[in-house]
Amino acid sequence: MFKYYMPTRFLFGEGALEKLHRQKLPGSKALIVISSGKSMRSGGYLDRLTAQLEKAGVGWEVYDKIMPNPIVEHVNEGGRRAVDTGCDFIVGLGGGSSIDSAKAIAVKAANPEHDFWDFAEGTTGGRQTPPNDPLPVVAVTTTAGTGTETDPWAVISKNETKEKLGYGYDKTFPVLSIVDPELMATVPPELTAYQGFDALFHSTECYLNKIANPISDLFCLDAISNIGRYLARAVKDGSDKEAREGVALANTEAGFTQSISGCISEHAIEHALSAYSPKLPHGAGLIAISLAYYETLIGKGACPDRFIKMAVALGKEDAASPEDFLDALACLQRDCGVDDIRLSDYGIAESDIPGLTANAYDNMGRMFACDPAEITPEDTSALLKKSYK
Amino acid sequence: MFKYYMPTRFLFGEGALEKLHRQKLPGSKALIVISSGKSMRSGGYLDRLTAQLEKAGVGWEVYDKIMPNPIVEHVNEGGRRAVDTGCDFIVGLGGGSSIDSAKAIAVKAANPEHDFWDFAEGTTGGRQTPPNDPLPVVAVTTTAGTGTETDPWAVISKNETKEKLGYGYDKTFPVLSIVDPELMATVPPELTAYQGFDALFHSTECYLNKIANPISDLFCLDAISNIGRYLARAVKDGSDKEAREGVALANTEAGFTQSISGCISEHAIEHALSAYSPKLPHGAGLIAISLAYYETLIGKGACPDRFIKMAVALGKEDAASPEDFLDALACLQRDCGVDDIRLSDYGIAESDIPGLTANAYDNMGRMFACDPAEITPEDTSALLKKSYK
Repeated sequence: MFKYYMPTRFLFGEGALEKLHRQKLPGSKALIVISSGKSMRSGGYLDRLTAQLEKAGVGWEVYDKIMPNPIVEHVNEGGRRAVDTGCDFIVGLGGGSSIDSAKAIAVKAANPEHDFWDFAEGTTGGRQTPPNDPLPVVAVTTTAGTGTETDPWAVISKNETKEKLGYGYDKTFPVLSIVDPELMATVPPELTAYQGFDALFHSTECYLNKIANPISDLFCLDAISNIGRYLARAVKDGSDKEAREGVALANTEAGFTQSISGCISEHAIEHALSAYSPKLPHGAGLIAISLAYYETLIGKGACPDRFIKMAVALGKEDAASPEDFLDALACLQRDCGVDDIRLSDYGIAESDIPGLTANAYDNMGRMFACDPAEITPEDTSALLKKSYK
Repeated sequence: MFKYYMPTRFLFGEGALEKLHRQKLPGSKALIVISSGKSMRSGGYLDRLTAQLEKAGVGWEVYDKIMPNPIVEHVNEGGRRAVDTGCDFIVGLGGGSSIDSAKAIAVKAANPEHDFWDFAEGTTGGRQTPPNDPLPVVAVTTTAGTGTETDPWAVISKNETKEKLGYGYDKTFPVLSIVDPELMATVPPELTAYQGFDALFHSTECYLNKIANPISDLFCLDAISNIGRYLARAVKDGSDKEAREGVALANTEAGFTQSISGCISEHAIEHALSAYSPKLPHGAGLIAISLAYYETLIGKGACPDRFIKMAVALGKEDAASPEDFLDALACLQRDCGVDDIRLSDYGIAESDIPGLTANAYDNMGRMFACDPAEITPEDTSALLKKSYK
């Protein structure tokens, strides 16, 4: 038996942003949440968005402090800003960090007397249920990685306690998402690769999750296939429209999979890494541990048929053994130029491994419970050691 | 560019009905809409449903007049009944006719001063926008055919004007659906076949529709594949649980496809047939015209690659030409014992063909506009003539 729920309305395709003003918007004034970087302004994306809102007769404010690994302080500040300026919905514009923050800010803004961390899980979160439903969220994604436009999840960090946690429930899906591959054309090659591998691993993990079901399987295999077909092309030539569209589709499909299946412990382990080192891009952390991680699962005999199907989807049509998936994955990492990620470059020390392992289980233990074979703390430390350079 | 929206939450699998009381129900008193036949009571389905509602602390009334091709008079009467008895949500229990009626009754109940036909299209419908949103609908499907549990559509007839029309918009999706294949175990073989072919044709038509998109394509091909693999087995042995589950999944997937792509003129032509002869089961009407219909499209050179992919999905793995789809379709009809449907057995005369053709264009003209190649009134009359016996 399985459950399905993914209520977000989305518009997909080149030119989708220009149709935003024709959609039914969920309020009269938007808080636009963007990163602290320059690209949303210098690339003209913010202007294009505000032009659409103005055409629709909707007012707006901007909150522009979001960092690549967004932090709870900015969620609280953004929520207060929404209240103070009379915004009745939130627009996340950018990559996963901005859209995830928009979701969390929407929760905080509707519950202004609370700190956002009152609702978080992890070691120090308050685990309370928000008394009020969040404000509605519109997502405009300019990257292809997290799939946050079609899932309820927001990943928010508390740096002082080294916690990087997923938060979400059935009210935190965006009500409307815009997935316009044209907005992704200027993402640099390295980030394109990191983000594309994030979408890939959402799909592989959701496919291996014990709660996988026939609908999530459909999305997972098609997303893996689209990454196999298009990611290296998008990395090599960012202006390749067909490739950008294929990777964007994989990303959106991977969002579905996270709504109806879920990520497993690969993501828990990576969250520990980027909680220790906030400058480590999430996708780079995943790539760094991925070969050792899947090798560990294969070594435990976890669902060999599924590994073979993933290898075929990734492009190795004659795949016959689970190890063929490792070959296909290594090959894609080489093709995308991301086969030599060094955790030591991001300030992570080999001596951190015991702490990283404990952090993953303490904060994201429920992800390990979904693994198709048991991955113990010893396995986790061993695979981190194997991945370390 | 394409749009996606399918907000229904659903629970799929054997035993799903028994979990209904644990779901969040959208009101405090339900109008349960069932058919005028005996099976919902004699099979114990109504009792099992009311037991769930009682466990959840929800009151209920029953409206039990729905016919296989539901009529506007019952929609209006059911809507008044909901208002008079203080029901604040509607539960459709049964096949497509009961669930479609539940959706239409939900519209009428929220707008009691209107006749439901004020909102219908077709030749005589009022084409008004309902002033109030419909009551929430819960769907509990006991057949695998229409996919209505995951789409917004309600097909309602006005017999005096021979109109059988699809009605729906983004507020008429069920909020919650239960798809429990165990409830389908007693559907007789002939109806199992008719309903299964309905699900098949939703998928083939949505796959050929000019607005088909990568997400609808995923659902269409998987639904076609599940029908090819499981329908004949479910027809031959209704207690084959794996087969019932496969056909139920195809049906639910076909509901998705109708939410994000749409049916084409095969459905328009069949609606004319069953508007003329309300005792003609919808699936039987579709089967009767299907070979001539797809032959017509193939003859016009419409998307040959898609026909080949559909043939492969239906089980003809070595398919190499569009005509292979016709072979696979004829073969499945023989395997299911439905290869000799005679329209004359249902009171349709050959001399009705011009009227049937005009009816299809007058009432469902927009479906012809989605065909992958133009099907003219002359083509329609010719294919009806070819199908007639």
